[in-house]
Amino acid sequence: MNLKRLSILGVGLLGGSIGLAVKSAISGCRVIGYGHRSESLQRALEIGAIDDAHNQPGPAVRESDLIILCTPVGRFESLLADILPDLPQSAVVTDVGSTKQSIVELGEKLLKRTQFVGSHPMAGSEKRGVEFARADLFQNALCITTPTDRTDRKALWLVEEFWQVLGMRLSRLSPAEHDRLLADVSHLAHAVAAALVDMQEEVGLNLAGKGFLDTTRVAGGDGGLWRDIFLDNRANVRASIEKLKGRLDQLLAMLDKEDGKALQVWLDQVAKRREELVQKKLRETSGE
Amino acid sequence: MNLKRLSILGVGLLGGSIGLAVKSAISGCRVIGYGHRSESLQRALEIGAIDDAHNQPGPAVRESDLIILCTPVGRFESLLADILPDLPQSAVVTDVGSTKQSIVELGEKLLKRTQFVGSHPMAGSEKRGVEFARADLFQNALCITTPTDRTDRKALWLVEEFWQVLGMRLSRLSPAEHDRLLADVSHLAHAVAAALVDMQEEVGLNLAGKGFLDTTRVAGGDGGLWRDIFLDNRANVRASIEKLKGRLDQLLAMLDKEDGKALQVWLDQVAKRREELVQKKLRETSGE
Repeated sequence: MNLKRLSILGVGLLGGSIGLAVKSAISGCRVIGYGHRSESLQRALEIGAIDDAHNQPGPAVRESDLIILCTPVGRFESLLADILPDLPQSAVVTDVGSTKQSIVELGEKLLKRTQFVGSHPMAGSEKRGVEFARADLFQNALCITTPTDRTDRKALWLVEEFWQVLGMRLSRLSPAEHDRLLADVSHLAHAVAAALVDMQEEVGLNLAGKGFLDTTRVAGGDGGLWRDIFLDNRANVRASIEKLKGRLDQLLAMLDKEDGKALQVWLDQVAKRREELVQKKLRETSGE
Repeated sequence: MNLKRLSILGVGLLGGSIGLAVKSAISGCRVIGYGHRSESLQRALEIGAIDDAHNQPGPAVRESDLIILCTPVGRFESLLADILPDLPQSAVVTDVGSTKQSIVELGEKLLKRTQFVGSHPMAGSEKRGVEFARADLFQNALCITTPTDRTDRKALWLVEEFWQVLGMRLSRLSPAEHDRLLADVSHLAHAVAAALVDMQEEVGLNLAGKGFLDTTRVAGGDGGLWRDIFLDNRANVRASIEKLKGRLDQLLAMLDKEDGKALQVWLDQVAKRREELVQKKLRETSGE
């Protein structure tokens, strides 16, 4: 891939991992890091995730071909305003945020509309910080890009080629569709996991087994990150919660009728659907 | 432990694992297995989980000191009726069912009241069948016994000593308290996992990541087993579902108010509570 200069704004787990992956996948690409914590920048330099470090965003984007926003989503607006005077005309800007509609609107409002491409690389962990960065974090994981009818095709292709070179599988959705589907399949799971932990009596928690720990694992994630996701995507999260309540009410109706037959059909269908998903994911992540 | 003769009624994953564990932990104990599938009995004999096999329950319990019901819960009533004529006066009967109130009522109704002790060894997996049996399945896991004021203390001590010799930690609850707490910490998690899988659009399922797979893992369990649990414990499951809905409504209220501060406090509290639980479980299962 022909990429001479990449800027990573925010060198945490994702930003650091992007740097490491680029250094191993794209030869001759200079990686510039911006961060407000000098220790993170220092660490990113030490592990070879970035070549140069800046504690101001403007100088970090000068002459870059591609700029990736990796800070918390809540900082994007001021960050975009800060880099605007230094942003090359031909540069493409993308991000790694977990919600897309408001971010893409912001990017298209503050930058040239054609210049911003929304990305959601679905990789990460509950861990935070550049010390957990890994060059293979993106390998075989899915990256969703969210172009609009205003997105320049060449900018989109550059961003998609970039994630693909880092080992990711690609999928395209509109920003609105992305946020709606992710509310169902990701944000709701987090909300439910948190509510499940919260509602337990202390004596009941002592009885928790492996099943409870698995079901609630995502609730161990970073509170600040999830606060931003929930607030930003609250309309879809509300719809997802109502949809889940509807399914739970269907289960209660089967219990009220003591309809063991319908209940087993439902449980078997669900187990089968999940097993098919597991098999599909195994094929995907093994790179088949 | 002084146990001469043990009967395992139902030689699947749990029954088979009990047999294997007894053979390695209690010397001189003869293990009798009953099952209605001859292949399972044959397999249990081959792996050394049982010494003798019967395809009728009556002959399997004669002269036994301890009898453990390991069939699906729905078969307990006819099984108890079947063994009654052959059951030694001094024998103690226990079970491995995941719900306790109706089972203990049944056991105390059909047998001498003092003779039945409810047990819930919290071990297992999504796997089914004696071919997955393991001698260490119970090691460091929790076993809840559910005595009532009618339970003979010596019978209770025998049952508790038995599970302890198999490596389990012990806890005592009333049958009603057991069912109420397990609805919150186990049955609800299964209901939610199943509902989460069921409500997804196909295109959304393609976007599912590791978080979704973890959150829904328990929904891969045996439909028949869970049908019985849900039906038997439906009053508590209803209360647990309503409690969860209440917590989700609290989350929605924070989102409506766009109260990011309260939201982050809640998410951080939940993450902390779960982390403390993880650490506690690590200490317990490492046997500390």
